[in-house]
Amino acid sequence: MSKSILINEVGLRDGLQIQPKFVPTSGKLEIALQLIEAGIKSFEAASFVSPKAVPQMSDASDLFKSLPKKDNIYYSALLFNQKGYERALESGAKSIAIALASTEKMNMANIRMSLPDAINNLGTLIKMAKNDGLDARAYISTALGCPYEGNVSSETVINLADKMFELGADKIAIADTIGSGGPALVEEVVGKAANKFGAENLIVHFHDTRALGLINAWVALKIGVTEFDTSLGGLGGCPFAPGAAGNLATEDLAFMLEDSGYDTGINISKVREAVLIAERYTGQKL
Amino acid sequence: MSKSILINEVGLRDGLQIQPKFVPTSGKLEIALQLIEAGIKSFEAASFVSPKAVPQMSDASDLFKSLPKKDNIYYSALLFNQKGYERALESGAKSIAIALASTEKMNMANIRMSLPDAINNLGTLIKMAKNDGLDARAYISTALGCPYEGNVSSETVINLADKMFELGADKIAIADTIGSGGPALVEEVVGKAANKFGAENLIVHFHDTRALGLINAWVALKIGVTEFDTSLGGLGGCPFAPGAAGNLATEDLAFMLEDSGYDTGINISKVREAVLIAERYTGQKL
Repeated sequence: MSKSILINEVGLRDGLQIQPKFVPTSGKLEIALQLIEAGIKSFEAASFVSPKAVPQMSDASDLFKSLPKKDNIYYSALLFNQKGYERALESGAKSIAIALASTEKMNMANIRMSLPDAINNLGTLIKMAKNDGLDARAYISTALGCPYEGNVSSETVINLADKMFELGADKIAIADTIGSGGPALVEEVVGKAANKFGAENLIVHFHDTRALGLINAWVALKIGVTEFDTSLGGLGGCPFAPGAAGNLATEDLAFMLEDSGYDTGINISKVREAVLIAERYTGQKL
Repeated sequence: MSKSILINEVGLRDGLQIQPKFVPTSGKLEIALQLIEAGIKSFEAASFVSPKAVPQMSDASDLFKSLPKKDNIYYSALLFNQKGYERALESGAKSIAIALASTEKMNMANIRMSLPDAINNLGTLIKMAKNDGLDARAYISTALGCPYEGNVSSETVINLADKMFELGADKIAIADTIGSGGPALVEEVVGKAANKFGAENLIVHFHDTRALGLINAWVALKIGVTEFDTSLGGLGGCPFAPGAAGNLATEDLAFMLEDSGYDTGINISKVREAVLIAERYTGQKL
């Protein structure tokens, strides 16, 4: 029997968030429905953040309410504060994704909080989610390098992950937000995290900025990680590195995994049809 | 101390051979000199084959004679028959690369020989080279898949490698000629070969047809392989898959290796300058 791998599609959130052209709720839904048809079972579907800061996500509530509710389809909502949490809860989200960056400067830039404040804030949000019976997945962003502070030590990442598990997170995502990590660094950081917390409790999130996304995924796979964030067509990219390649593409990872005998449950040509839909709505060639 | 990896630059041969625009000897030399400046120490510099079949290689003798002879720079000559061997020897080659394909049909298509005849032919060439004090590296092409016969079993590859070592080959190159292999297959085939023959006696040659070249290299690296064929700018490609991506790019592999703490001795920006020279001569955007 081939090993089952879960691909968490983040295109609707991480992919779309920096697209300048607003994709109407119906367009987002059309992409989601095609991806469900393609076999995707897990989505980071939207972020509940300020519509002024991220206009593309202003319809998060409407989108969440219109997504088809099925027992085996999982939607998570990214959020950073209590207001976002309340909106997500009201919209029917069953899972939240919360995030802090590995460094002081990146937290200040991204959420205007010091690192200790960001940890406390996450603790509050995790507690709320667990009280309401929601899943909570905690992201450590810039875990493999920070645009402001450069290298990030594996100890820093492990310590942050440890704190987040203590605070009640169900899973920890190790996110290479700017795609600065290579396979040796993934071996070190994800390897240590898997040893300490169990690979089954980790998610990895890679960008393909330097064309190392697939290798990094392969290294994490061999460490035992079974859940990967990807984005259809590689849609997305880091706001700090304009022009850089985006997220690891869903169809690329699914192809490599299926080629290597893993089971993703994904029909790659149907994902490609979703990519065409996304191209039509965003006006971007993927 | 970081582990040292040898990159064998095949752009002058595998890269250029299917380029329709003839690159003059002076142009090939200019590329080679820039690559030497960039730190490349090993080249497959030309093939000694019929100038009618491969016009681009018609100046192989001239090129070999004009390449700078230095103790620490290694040039090999690809050839398939005794006539090619004699031309290579006369041109001052110190190392020959010889090849057979893993399947009957590919040998017939490529060198018009049955597989048993191809093995005998290689035996003769290896014996001549060893008698003359030359190195002999034997390539098993289509080792991870054949355009005519499809899948190739790892046993087939191991048996062929075994025969070639018996016949006196110094090293065996496992070549994924059409880029059909993925990391799981590399693990199997290169893993078995390393167990049986020692990773230090293997070379791997990957194409990037399906964007898996770097991952395959990473997998081989972790198995212990220390010598890799690459081509500047990914120049080249498989004549059987027009439009497909070419060889694994020298600068991509060097970048991944250096990023991961390996020592290639290569200055990547100087390789990029060589790529610009190659673009100028071939008229191809790399």
